[in-house]
Amino acid sequence: LNPRFAGLGTTIFTVMSALAVEHRAVNLGQGFPDEDGPEEIRAAAARALIEGPNQYPPMTGLPVLRQAVAEHDRRFYGLAYDPAREVLVTSGATEALAAALFALLSPGDEVVVFEPLYDCYVPIILQAGAVPKPVRLVPPDWSIPQAELEAAFSPRTKLVLINTPMNPTGKVLARAELERVAALAIAHDAYLLCDEVYEHLVYGGHRHVPVATFPGLRERTVRIGSAGKTFSLTGWKVGYLSGPAELIGVIGKAHQFLTFTTPPGLQIGVAHGLGLGDDYFESLASGLERKRDRLVAGLRAVGFETLPVEGSYFVTADIRGVGPELPDDDYCRWLTTAVGVAAVPVSAFYWQADPPRHLIRFCFCKTEATLDAAIERLRTRL
Amino acid sequence: LNPRFAGLGTTIFTVMSALAVEHRAVNLGQGFPDEDGPEEIRAAAARALIEGPNQYPPMTGLPVLRQAVAEHDRRFYGLAYDPAREVLVTSGATEALAAALFALLSPGDEVVVFEPLYDCYVPIILQAGAVPKPVRLVPPDWSIPQAELEAAFSPRTKLVLINTPMNPTGKVLARAELERVAALAIAHDAYLLCDEVYEHLVYGGHRHVPVATFPGLRERTVRIGSAGKTFSLTGWKVGYLSGPAELIGVIGKAHQFLTFTTPPGLQIGVAHGLGLGDDYFESLASGLERKRDRLVAGLRAVGFETLPVEGSYFVTADIRGVGPELPDDDYCRWLTTAVGVAAVPVSAFYWQADPPRHLIRFCFCKTEATLDAAIERLRTRL
Ligand SMILES: CSCCC(=O)C(=O)O
Ligand SMILES: CSCCC(=O)C(=O)O
Repeated sequence: LNPRFAGLGTTIFTVMSALAVEHRAVNLGQGFPDEDGPEEIRAAAARALIEGPNQYPPMTGLPVLRQAVAEHDRRFYGLAYDPAREVLVTSGATEALAAALFALLSPGDEVVVFEPLYDCYVPIILQAGAVPKPVRLVPPDWSIPQAELEAAFSPRTKLVLINTPMNPTGKVLARAELERVAALAIAHDAYLLCDEVYEHLVYGGHRHVPVATFPGLRERTVRIGSAGKTFSLTGWKVGYLSGPAELIGVIGKAHQFLTFTTPPGLQIGVAHGLGLGDDYFESLASGLERKRDRLVAGLRAVGFETLPVEGSYFVTADIRGVGPELPDDDYCRWLTTAVGVAAVPVSAFYWQADPPRHLIRFCFCKTEATLDAAIERLRTRL
Repeated sequence: LNPRFAGLGTTIFTVMSALAVEHRAVNLGQGFPDEDGPEEIRAAAARALIEGPNQYPPMTGLPVLRQAVAEHDRRFYGLAYDPAREVLVTSGATEALAAALFALLSPGDEVVVFEPLYDCYVPIILQAGAVPKPVRLVPPDWSIPQAELEAAFSPRTKLVLINTPMNPTGKVLARAELERVAALAIAHDAYLLCDEVYEHLVYGGHRHVPVATFPGLRERTVRIGSAGKTFSLTGWKVGYLSGPAELIGVIGKAHQFLTFTTPPGLQIGVAHGLGLGDDYFESLASGLERKRDRLVAGLRAVGFETLPVEGSYFVTADIRGVGPELPDDDYCRWLTTAVGVAAVPVSAFYWQADPPRHLIRFCFCKTEATLDAAIERLRTRL
């Protein structure tokens, strides 16, 4: 058995969700909303299941969805992609990442990544025979240390993997930060792969800036979006990539042997969703911002310090001084079983040794009732 | 860019389907039915899209579908799998194959495969760093040559990849043939990965025999099934694996980083489908058998010799003496553009040099009207 996979544990999300079910905890661990996205999207998809198409769509995605992705990227970012050759539909952003990493990386290539990082990045980079070069962001504002950033690049750097808005930190990388990363990518002639699945979940005065919009970067940058996060339908597993034809073409070759294609009915629903008016996207963000504020207030009221949340589904809390003195993973187990609220340890998002052990992640994309139930348990049982 | 993918062409199925559309040819190339599977399956899935669940299901698949797969395997083959630990749901059989190959293979491992073979096998084996060891079957009955079979095994053999009923040949491997393969797998302590997506599409007196039913083989064998083929819903991309917990567990680790999970609404539909009565499965096979007979008669009437079709969607025709003297790929291009009937060259299913060039594959899982239109064109324009 391949030690790259045989040696892995079950993802922390699955572990904590299972523990939450077992202990009837309020699950603020795994990042999924507890209210499904727009009925009209689900109805469009349901209609397609009844009326068709239900057979193989084109390997690169239904034209109507590729067109909708291109229009989305133009409308929100002024980015122009040819839907025929510069957009690819995948079975979720996870598959988009896997296909892109397999297509862009050869054995021995190096990939600059930022810790904390989403748990699928490193296993796929390693399976591609490539070498992750992590740069550790510095809490509480998760800044990018310049010396470490520069040291992560080498003549073997093939790719920089950026996640913004960022999971688990809730950070939205600022233009100036992205420019520092982009300058190094250009200097080392590296590609940029941008996991932007939380692109529409940005709060306060912050704005999501795709690296692909920077002068000269479009040709070396591939962007990943996800219907799961943008339409609160995380189970649908419809993702999309946009980028220059040369890169998207090769990523399509990897996609064709990973899943080949993605259910056409769901693609039709997502195409409809991407065409929704600005009011949909605005109220998605403002609704989540209210949830963020509600949970942050609840966490602070019981004594947690919380780190800034600029985007994503997640708020990070500092556990020092609140409840028992435990490392973050044991703390999350204790919180789930004894207090009845599930969270996820931030250390699970580190690949290298010696992660911070004082931070845990709560998910706030839940109904007010769910958030209030969690807050009440924290208030009375902590 | 990774030469393993950058060096690949677009799959022959996509190429021929596009050519068929361009030339308004009757498409008997890519293997998909032109009538969707049972309404009740589609209605169950559509209902789930409206009523939920629409968020991440468990990484290994919804319990109701894992249970249905286990019951299916027991009902049809007497195989007993624990739905909690020995069944995994994937985003189609292609992802099932990729996850299994990545999980079971380490760099340098050898995999015994049979030519002709489905086009995703070799790229994923190579991406895993492993080495395909092809055994070439001998037409017209696609027998397995014993000396070549034995020569393909070595101390480095990790896995034998079996496809039965077989694409593109339409062969259903006989028990005696499978026993020869299984004996060598045991002797070399190799795993068996069985792509059985056409398991219910078997005709005449033939019977599909899963290798996992052989004495002592269950513990080293993983079986792959597919809703696409079993329910005529090729676009749904719902696949499933069953096997011993040790292997399924590690394959789940690869799955969790390839797609993580599969749309829950579609899983609910497929679970319903697997519970349909024997009459559904019998009429699926008998309906396809009539289509096979119709197309075979039409091909013979215009002068093609056809090879035996024991299962699958496909009939192979010998092009020698019918129409222009061309190698099979040029012949298929000519047939699509000049005659208006798309087929697929069998040489596209060979990885090694010097494939046979006199065989083309027609797909018969089409309405009678479509088959008749194709036959009429062959009769009048060939
Ligand atoms: C794919 S399960 C994890 C969901 C998620 O994005 C998260 O919780 O970080
Ligand atoms: C995934 S497209 C190919 C469909 C098929 O199984 C075939 O035509 O052989």
